[in-house]
Amino acid sequence: MTGLSRLSLNQATTKRWGVREAAEGCARAGIPWIGLWRDKVAETGLEESASIVRETGLKVSSLCRGGMFPATTKRERLDRLDDNRRAVDEAATLGTDVLVLVCGAAPGRDLRAARDEVEEAIETLAPYADEAGINLGIEPLHPAFAADRSVVCTLGEANGIVRRVGSPRVGVVIDAYHVWWDADLYTEIGRASGSILGFHVDDWPRGGGDPLLSRGMMGDGVIGLRRMREAVEDAGYEGPVEVEIFNEAIWAKPGEEVLETMKRRYLEHVLGEVPAGGSA
Amino acid sequence: MTGLSRLSLNQATTKRWGVREAAEGCARAGIPWIGLWRDKVAETGLEESASIVRETGLKVSSLCRGGMFPATTKRERLDRLDDNRRAVDEAATLGTDVLVLVCGAAPGRDLRAARDEVEEAIETLAPYADEAGINLGIEPLHPAFAADRSVVCTLGEANGIVRRVGSPRVGVVIDAYHVWWDADLYTEIGRASGSILGFHVDDWPRGGGDPLLSRGMMGDGVIGLRRMREAVEDAGYEGPVEVEIFNEAIWAKPGEEVLETMKRRYLEHVLGEVPAGGSA
Repeated sequence: MTGLSRLSLNQATTKRWGVREAAEGCARAGIPWIGLWRDKVAETGLEESASIVRETGLKVSSLCRGGMFPATTKRERLDRLDDNRRAVDEAATLGTDVLVLVCGAAPGRDLRAARDEVEEAIETLAPYADEAGINLGIEPLHPAFAADRSVVCTLGEANGIVRRVGSPRVGVVIDAYHVWWDADLYTEIGRASGSILGFHVDDWPRGGGDPLLSRGMMGDGVIGLRRMREAVEDAGYEGPVEVEIFNEAIWAKPGEEVLETMKRRYLEHVLGEVPAGGSA
Repeated sequence: MTGLSRLSLNQATTKRWGVREAAEGCARAGIPWIGLWRDKVAETGLEESASIVRETGLKVSSLCRGGMFPATTKRERLDRLDDNRRAVDEAATLGTDVLVLVCGAAPGRDLRAARDEVEEAIETLAPYADEAGINLGIEPLHPAFAADRSVVCTLGEANGIVRRVGSPRVGVVIDAYHVWWDADLYTEIGRASGSILGFHVDDWPRGGGDPLLSRGMMGDGVIGLRRMREAVEDAGYEGPVEVEIFNEAIWAKPGEEVLETMKRRYLEHVLGEVPAGGSA
């Protein structure tokens, strides 16, 4: 199963599982990587979570999430920076070198000001992350989340921040669901060369619905995942590939079944290897 | 009420009304413009619809919608072009000079090919529209609709098509809901100067939900509408401003009430005039 050597379960995909269940599930399923979430880690305990992943022999691909920088008052902005420093420390304890940043929405109607706040906060956080040996991965979110979660809506914007901040510790995380629609995507993947810190796969099904919970399993939507994976590799990224799917129907299934489906779909739709016995 | 001289009801906002009810409602409310939809016009009849708007003294700001160009087979693509020619004729009969184009989604996973098909179709349609005296307004749709409705997701892409097609009959329609999140928006509004064929206002509320039905009334969301209106004017557009809101809660209200709210909100949030008696 060398085809799975880069596969990572982002634990958002198995929402009902805690850190232990997710880590043990991955170990049983032959999935070598796991992406953790801070709320799940807090439930289990930070040190306990770190020892669970060590015991199970997994590698931690990333910690989700820092960010959420813009705020109405200076006090709030400073509190959020403090929280991000704690997230950096947690990432180090968990043994990953990537903290994923979901940058936050504008508190009012001024997107330009919020984008400036995001950039300033990342600039402030970078030296702290550097001392801890942690990379900060700016994840552009789909524009459907611009009002609630992130003013950084395209890979082009994320690349712009990376260039201007100019720290080797600041890069981008590319999630297929968030960027697939972008006419400039392949240009911007090329431009991200050398600063790609993560690649997430999932799918965008047709038919609408709330984008927060409508993510599909790879193969259930319209995204050309294989081409995107090849472009990300051509840009020099050889790290783990996380499967991160927010979807009530997938959450309702037994975790083991989700991992098996995810493995088959990854091989078929991301790597482009048709598994023996046909497609799933 | 000169403040309302550019206001137009796009009849999608009052979905339960037919052409006659919408036109008479506008006339009573002192709204001088109306934007019509082909399905509503078909229900009432084309000639009948045309005489209703003449009788009520309204001006027709646009007809929605042409487009939906990409298709799996050549036969289907030709059928869709024919349908667009009929839409051009209908626009002429109704006395508007703008046909709004929602360009269509990719039938498969190849966005680039679908974008090329869209451009080719608009190029093919332009001379026909020119003979009929109709302008074709490419409306970029929010990327949330890329899988189902339009591969043209940004004003930048629409501007690119306009430049490459190079017909004075081809321009863009800017809808606040679709473009507000874009970091390049103001640059692209400037670039659209001279080819803006319509401006639609509405709002993006916080809190998520299905983007198809989550549009808000102006003032109920995060969009800086006044700034956007000023930029569109700076780019030379002085035409009607359509209010186009797809929202079950608004559809459930009496049409008269919707028109009154829409007038107040337009004055306050789009024009920036606080009406006597305070905000609504």
